[in-house]
Amino acid sequence: MSPEWYHKDRFLATRPAIASAIHRTPVLRSRTFDQWVGGELFFKCEPFQRMGAFKMRGAAHAIARLDEAARRRGVATHSSGNFAQALALAAREAGIPAWIVMPSNAPAVKVAAVRGYGGQIVTCAPTLQAREETLEAVVAETGATFIHPFDNEDVILGQGTAAQELIEEVGTLDAIVAPVGGGGLVGGTAIAALHLSPATRIYAAEPEGAGDAWQSKRANRLILQTNPQTIADGLRTSLGQLTFPLIRDLVHDVLLVSEAQIVEAMARTFERLKIVVEPSAAVAVAAVLHHNALFRGKRTGVILSGGNVDLKKLGELFSA
Amino acid sequence: MSPEWYHKDRFLATRPAIASAIHRTPVLRSRTFDQWVGGELFFKCEPFQRMGAFKMRGAAHAIARLDEAARRRGVATHSSGNFAQALALAAREAGIPAWIVMPSNAPAVKVAAVRGYGGQIVTCAPTLQAREETLEAVVAETGATFIHPFDNEDVILGQGTAAQELIEEVGTLDAIVAPVGGGGLVGGTAIAALHLSPATRIYAAEPEGAGDAWQSKRANRLILQTNPQTIADGLRTSLGQLTFPLIRDLVHDVLLVSEAQIVEAMARTFERLKIVVEPSAAVAVAAVLHHNALFRGKRTGVILSGGNVDLKKLGELFSA
Repeated sequence: MSPEWYHKDRFLATRPAIASAIHRTPVLRSRTFDQWVGGELFFKCEPFQRMGAFKMRGAAHAIARLDEAARRRGVATHSSGNFAQALALAAREAGIPAWIVMPSNAPAVKVAAVRGYGGQIVTCAPTLQAREETLEAVVAETGATFIHPFDNEDVILGQGTAAQELIEEVGTLDAIVAPVGGGGLVGGTAIAALHLSPATRIYAAEPEGAGDAWQSKRANRLILQTNPQTIADGLRTSLGQLTFPLIRDLVHDVLLVSEAQIVEAMARTFERLKIVVEPSAAVAVAAVLHHNALFRGKRTGVILSGGNVDLKKLGELFSA
Repeated sequence: MSPEWYHKDRFLATRPAIASAIHRTPVLRSRTFDQWVGGELFFKCEPFQRMGAFKMRGAAHAIARLDEAARRRGVATHSSGNFAQALALAAREAGIPAWIVMPSNAPAVKVAAVRGYGGQIVTCAPTLQAREETLEAVVAETGATFIHPFDNEDVILGQGTAAQELIEEVGTLDAIVAPVGGGGLVGGTAIAALHLSPATRIYAAEPEGAGDAWQSKRANRLILQTNPQTIADGLRTSLGQLTFPLIRDLVHDVLLVSEAQIVEAMARTFERLKIVVEPSAAVAVAAVLHHNALFRGKRTGVILSGGNVDLKKLGELFSA
């Protein structure tokens, strides 16, 4: 029934292809969180993934699937977030070049991180048009393969390996909650559950201030994000042509949370789980805390997507 | 050769006695840290321990060793730090009362934490004399057993189970580094290594501003701490009558680190390991980073002792 690209055999071939490039991250529990929610929570901890986020899985998989000629030419993407770092690191590990198109207003700390992982940075004006034109020029000049940060089959399948490891480690779950931005993580999660634990309900957690997945799910068509307003900087993007159908067909519901709930969930995660999470990861935590009626008496997986947060900003966030 | 209280049989009986009360915490690795040090590091992650620190191990063990009559009367201690919370929680789990003597100037957040774990708080004036008199009065009135936060055989043996789990999980280590305050953790660590991996060198990591263990080790006699100056609030105390001989006889050396090195190590741990650590835990990280000649080409365990840090203070710490 599922489109060919995410058939079971192809999904199950994913993790072996990336096993040497990624960490198998731990699953942690907290009795306090369990009490708050009234159910059992299993936190899949991607902040401990290489470069600090699940994006490493998809990037490594996209590179693993290239043929020899394409590997020689390298890869390219546009991203100012975790995928930029992930593709740079995965490419370095594979011994191939990576060109990363970043807007001129990208935070210096993010540019430095990509450079630290060996990525070749190509700066462009901070507009969608400049970004796409610059990327096209890079691809035309170098022959590099463009790897979309989320609307790419191999990337989505790679992201699904986090949920696969979670299900293999803790057994059947009633639900899994993952944040949704472009939809690669929750889409991959839904594919993993489809094949490994089909009764598991998949929930996408989304900021109210960037609610395009919630709108798209309800409208039953892809509605693009305009003017997102959220501290969860990884979740400001629109869904894509591959990820929207996954949310439409395989994700049970989209759960919205407020900015205050995101910050509170981030603090609770630092305080109780002792894990450094970025705001985007805290969105999934906020969803289980504030939509807890869905999870009471249930076994629920929560995908903590990443932990790349600017320490200098923590004081501001936690001063309330 | 070893005093009877920490003979192998008695040490090996410890973990089974506390298994149901504690978490087996994960061991995490970081390629970046390995590169910085030039060796392999294995981080034993006690921030993920119940109530957020290794102290839960010793508290649970001290309570497990009480006879039935003593259990009915309960336990008492003086502490404004992690041991207060640990004893309160371990007592609640055992279904027995715990009286915690805390100075009137203890931070409200710590008092609230002890109360949250069910401890009965007895406030005293913020002097050593008042603390001891108040504790004696509590013990006289209630018949509770005084459990010293570190200078107690069962507590020390309990703390040693962290290193035991570490050695069992990763195999032989060339060295283990643990922070030293009262000496319960590093003392227990040395006992674990004595029995399970006798060639492992044990290093105590200590702030320069609270260098009593360093002085005591060099003087070959117990020198008390006076006027400690360090942000590592768990490490301001003196060694005790039981812990000093362990540091003298079983600990290879004491490694001093500066305040700036502690803060830097704390930031690196947040950024790279994505683990929330308190300053006392960062002292061990600072020691491997700044005494790295000792650990180059070696396999070294690092005990991250705890993660109970006030989020509101992070901004200040990381603003540099």
